[in-house]
Amino acid sequence: MAFTRRHLLGLEGLTRDELEHLLATARAMRGVLRRSVKKVPTLRGKAVINLFFENSTRTRMSFEVAAKVLSADAYNVSASGSSAAKGETLVDTAKNLDAMHPDVIVVRHFASGAAELVARHTRAAVVNAGDGQHEHPTQGLLDALTLTEALGDLEGREIAIVGDVMHSRVARSNLFALTTLGARVTLCGPPTLLPREFERLGATLTHSLETAVRGADAVMMLRVQHERMEGAYLPSAREYSRVFGLSQRQLDWMKPEAIILHPGPVNRGVELSPEVADGPRSVILPQVENGVAVRMAALYLLAGGQTEEEP
Amino acid sequence: MAFTRRHLLGLEGLTRDELEHLLATARAMRGVLRRSVKKVPTLRGKAVINLFFENSTRTRMSFEVAAKVLSADAYNVSASGSSAAKGETLVDTAKNLDAMHPDVIVVRHFASGAAELVARHTRAAVVNAGDGQHEHPTQGLLDALTLTEALGDLEGREIAIVGDVMHSRVARSNLFALTTLGARVTLCGPPTLLPREFERLGATLTHSLETAVRGADAVMMLRVQHERMEGAYLPSAREYSRVFGLSQRQLDWMKPEAIILHPGPVNRGVELSPEVADGPRSVILPQVENGVAVRMAALYLLAGGQTEEEP
Amino acid sequence: MAFTRRHLLGLEGLTRDELEHLLATARAMRGVLRRSVKKVPTLRGKAVINLFFENSTRTRMSFEVAAKVLSADAYNVSASGSSAAKGETLVDTAKNLDAMHPDVIVVRHFASGAAELVARHTRAAVVNAGDGQHEHPTQGLLDALTLTEALGDLEGREIAIVGDVMHSRVARSNLFALTTLGARVTLCGPPTLLPREFERLGATLTHSLETAVRGADAVMMLRVQHERMEGAYLPSAREYSRVFGLSQRQLDWMKPEAIILHPGPVNRGVELSPEVADGPRSVILPQVENGVAVRMAALYLLAGGQTEEEP
Repeated sequence: MAFTRRHLLGLEGLTRDELEHLLATARAMRGVLRRSVKKVPTLRGKAVINLFFENSTRTRMSFEVAAKVLSADAYNVSASGSSAAKGETLVDTAKNLDAMHPDVIVVRHFASGAAELVARHTRAAVVNAGDGQHEHPTQGLLDALTLTEALGDLEGREIAIVGDVMHSRVARSNLFALTTLGARVTLCGPPTLLPREFERLGATLTHSLETAVRGADAVMMLRVQHERMEGAYLPSAREYSRVFGLSQRQLDWMKPEAIILHPGPVNRGVELSPEVADGPRSVILPQVENGVAVRMAALYLLAGGQTEEEP
Repeated sequence: MAFTRRHLLGLEGLTRDELEHLLATARAMRGVLRRSVKKVPTLRGKAVINLFFENSTRTRMSFEVAAKVLSADAYNVSASGSSAAKGETLVDTAKNLDAMHPDVIVVRHFASGAAELVARHTRAAVVNAGDGQHEHPTQGLLDALTLTEALGDLEGREIAIVGDVMHSRVARSNLFALTTLGARVTLCGPPTLLPREFERLGATLTHSLETAVRGADAVMMLRVQHERMEGAYLPSAREYSRVFGLSQRQLDWMKPEAIILHPGPVNRGVELSPEVADGPRSVILPQVENGVAVRMAALYLLAGGQTEEEP
Repeated sequence: MAFTRRHLLGLEGLTRDELEHLLATARAMRGVLRRSVKKVPTLRGKAVINLFFENSTRTRMSFEVAAKVLSADAYNVSASGSSAAKGETLVDTAKNLDAMHPDVIVVRHFASGAAELVARHTRAAVVNAGDGQHEHPTQGLLDALTLTEALGDLEGREIAIVGDVMHSRVARSNLFALTTLGARVTLCGPPTLLPREFERLGATLTHSLETAVRGADAVMMLRVQHERMEGAYLPSAREYSRVFGLSQRQLDWMKPEAIILHPGPVNRGVELSPEVADGPRSVILPQVENGVAVRMAALYLLAGGQTEEEP
């Protein structure tokens, strides 16, 4: 069992073996992260560039921690301070960074397909840290890791994903990973944000939150983007919260041992009431810890192979 | 003699023993900083997050240098690029960072009490790098270190602090440290910026710069915030400078060996004339060096305790 | 043969021996950069500050990679987040950074002479990373390194530099380096951007692109600044491109083995057509790799001398 791909651009098409190898590696990495001295020499002399065209302190930090715990050198490049502001194309940015000999480029971009485009123009391994509405594979992996911690084997488990499914790379990456790992996924959201195409990807669709969460072993709430709450898609944050938010009342519909995930940052009072976000079923903070662990695993598996110096 | 607190949130309430232990540790750290090879393995595998909600390149750099000289991994999170911009609460930010296993979180925030709030929601040690109008303990320590270098024992020494006392966390932290170390503190400023409550904290108050600096062994000039100079508190920078600024004329009132401190950056021509800022009595640059030293001491004492790997 | 200067502020006045020693050191450094494990302990415990008052992700990254591969600690200070925004003078910034014991300060500034001003107020070595319209010595060195790779000895070689010569620190640094290394330099641009003073520095001037590139062994295209394309200097980007841009037609004028350089980022369709930028004569990406190598050489030669600990 191994992971021999050059890049991690998405979870679509990964085999169950590959996913399980990633998760097993992440579990070992979490052990390193929890040590008092969080430092192993595995990626010493390797360079990891965080190339972020969208702001995301949390995801950037998570990759930076992952890189440094493994002793890699980490570099942060954000769009605002970058050549992109001077009109450089993404391909030119990729080629120019490539010439500085990075081992991994972590790409976050507002356009679907951006990570793959970078991958075609660099010798480095590329990790997609979220590209438009396409995929966010390390988010899917950290969710899968968190789910297996709480539920054990996901075979036959029922997972509900609730919210703006249409625009969500988190929903897509999770759908691919969870169905491959044997879970049954129900997607739930308002009609404007729940395209029928997802049925072809193996999901069950519903517009009823009650239908989605009754019988679920886990409920994953998607983050609502503020710019969507006042637009054509949603009437208002208040209305969205009333119909698709989780508070104590909806919790009563759920199995007693069911857990609640959210990719963060939470809009308190919109997707989750404060009592639910901070309650005993919430695994939001384990998700954050697992995020560092899966990023360590991804960096290790993509950049940590054999080298001429260390056979 | 030791320092066994979990956090460094303020200097109020620290004992003389604790302060002297911090200063002695800082003196040893300064020796490390002055080496040609500025690197000791003390905090290898420890993570220090600089969480800054207010811009301060100097203070952030000072903590970053302190962390790296001690071999810790340093991470910079600023409010502009952070989840705070997406509406996340400070408590959520603290909990989320905590899940990434930092050992120290350095917090700078515009709200008084912010560092303590973070401390209540993390397993990491918290260093307050300035919270609203409350405290800035490493500034108070670097000032105390600079004063003891120049004056020796502070017992019975006269220290004048001049400027916008009311809004100054620097003045507050200094007042606590200096009175605990035996000095006598006179606070001086315009009536609008010098609340009578400070008398209860052990200070003498005056509105006369001449009264404050005659007989002082050291004069600490507070930075005037530009936004206050055109508001209700101060008539104008020019007027402020005439009444509360130090230039050659005011220097003549002072003891020949008295020194001048400023937390920087200096508004040249406002708090200090250029000749005074750059003159032989100014210890502004030793303050900067001592700033790194006290931050090394704080990180070392809070994060450098025993670990399972290194007993 | 050695390099014994304290700073690298410009290439004007460097001897041929000094330039060749810098280039030979850079060639050795490039070998380190190309290793699978890109890390040597040469500058362990040394601190390199990147002090950038102009945005330039690429140049900053290049210096940061150079520092980290040599095991130095790298710090990034940008003007937007810095004390400069609070009105601090450049001299005060230099003195304050100096008090934190950096070994090298890399300065990028919009004002000619800024790097030298910093150098006068710090004990650190200063590398000029571009100051106004004055010099950009590591760019000149990386261009010289790239040229020697392609052409061998530069003695008697013909190099054309095309574009906004007047405002270009790149053109100036190249002119100094290339003429010292024995090359013949032709400067080409519109009359408004090609001052006659450059003849005194040893260059041949022409307003005809055809004259410049016929017979040239290498053509260096300068970047056009957008703010100049709509101002008094240039009629429009389209017009500039037609008269001074390189596309396939102009390539036919050149020697078959002539190469094309550009400091990047390229304005595609302005200085270079896409076919030329990506074509076989373009050495733009080797320039980027060589940029890291010459910066490693500069940091090594300025900060890597003997220390009390490592004799």
